[in-house]
Amino acid sequence: MANIIPSLDKLIDCFAALPGVGRKSASRFAYHILDIPEEQALEFSDAIAEVRRNVHQCPVCHNLTDTEECSICSDPERDRSMICVVESPRDVSSIEKTREYKGLYHVLHGLISPLDGIGPEQLFIKQLITRAADDSVREVIMATNPTVEGESTAMYISKLIKPLGVKVTRLATGVPVGGNLEYADEMTLYKALEGRSEI
Amino acid sequence: MANIIPSLDKLIDCFAALPGVGRKSASRFAYHILDIPEEQALEFSDAIAEVRRNVHQCPVCHNLTDTEECSICSDPERDRSMICVVESPRDVSSIEKTREYKGLYHVLHGLISPLDGIGPEQLFIKQLITRAADDSVREVIMATNPTVEGESTAMYISKLIKPLGVKVTRLATGVPVGGNLEYADEMTLYKALEGRSEI
Repeated sequence: MANIIPSLDKLIDCFAALPGVGRKSASRFAYHILDIPEEQALEFSDAIAEVRRNVHQCPVCHNLTDTEECSICSDPERDRSMICVVESPRDVSSIEKTREYKGLYHVLHGLISPLDGIGPEQLFIKQLITRAADDSVREVIMATNPTVEGESTAMYISKLIKPLGVKVTRLATGVPVGGNLEYADEMTLYKALEGRSEI
Repeated sequence: MANIIPSLDKLIDCFAALPGVGRKSASRFAYHILDIPEEQALEFSDAIAEVRRNVHQCPVCHNLTDTEECSICSDPERDRSMICVVESPRDVSSIEKTREYKGLYHVLHGLISPLDGIGPEQLFIKQLITRAADDSVREVIMATNPTVEGESTAMYISKLIKPLGVKVTRLATGVPVGGNLEYADEMTLYKALEGRSEI
């Protein structure tokens, strides 16, 4: 191709490295950057650098934050007797959106996955055990995804925490609200039946 | 939500402003920026600023370039008797990928669209007429999209260029290669029949 612009190509490469973005979308995004007003483009560029400069892990729960300790850990209103264990910071956002949970979090930053070479020592499990050993903690909610890796990580952690005399619970699995039984897989239906409750 | 990180939110906004990207994908992209190595993230940030600094329109054909005149206009091997008129720089890339066309280009940067308030004077049509008036030009190929706006822009321009004694041609419309007659719309089939050629 006679028409190669190195800096445009470089930007297309950057966009194409985003999860789920192919060359075609990446090139649309790059041309979009050339279409928008200059200041908006530079704002975008700054936003990327900014987020890397400001956002880091909370030393307590390992969630992402731009303050010394995250806003949840430092909030005196939160219930310090519960720790909700999740795989990633995005899961914290999802649970926060329910406005239902008032306890603390602990972000593992991954799940145990021997096939991917990820063992317990690569996750923030040791730190969780230390936190759970505190007298104020009465319940640890395992909110990892209901997948093979999520379940086995939950099992692994619960075996370490139970001896501390702390209650370990697991998110309910079942048919999603607004879902359709016809399209639910057998495992989900099985779990929904198993976990049925009286009305 | 208790868990708002302003710089992360700002980045999500930036990603969500890309064409076809919703809040959910935008947030995935933003978290991805936090996951990748720092230097890779800063490279991305630089790539955006870089592309705005380096890439501008070629003064001749209005295609994008990072050199004074674009690589096609300044290539002595290209056939200067043909100008292919396209809507956007991305169309130039698409046609270049065929490795079939050896002439020059002219990028309009839009199509005439009265409903969107875009008239001929907002596009690089005057510049095209000036170029077409040069003695060396023998053919202008209208390669705008086969849509209502594309067709009417092609008609409008051809009416201005024909009086200069320059041949004006239009891309063939028909069934795409590898396509299926069953799924072709009537208009495409009609055009394909009309434009049939002997084998």
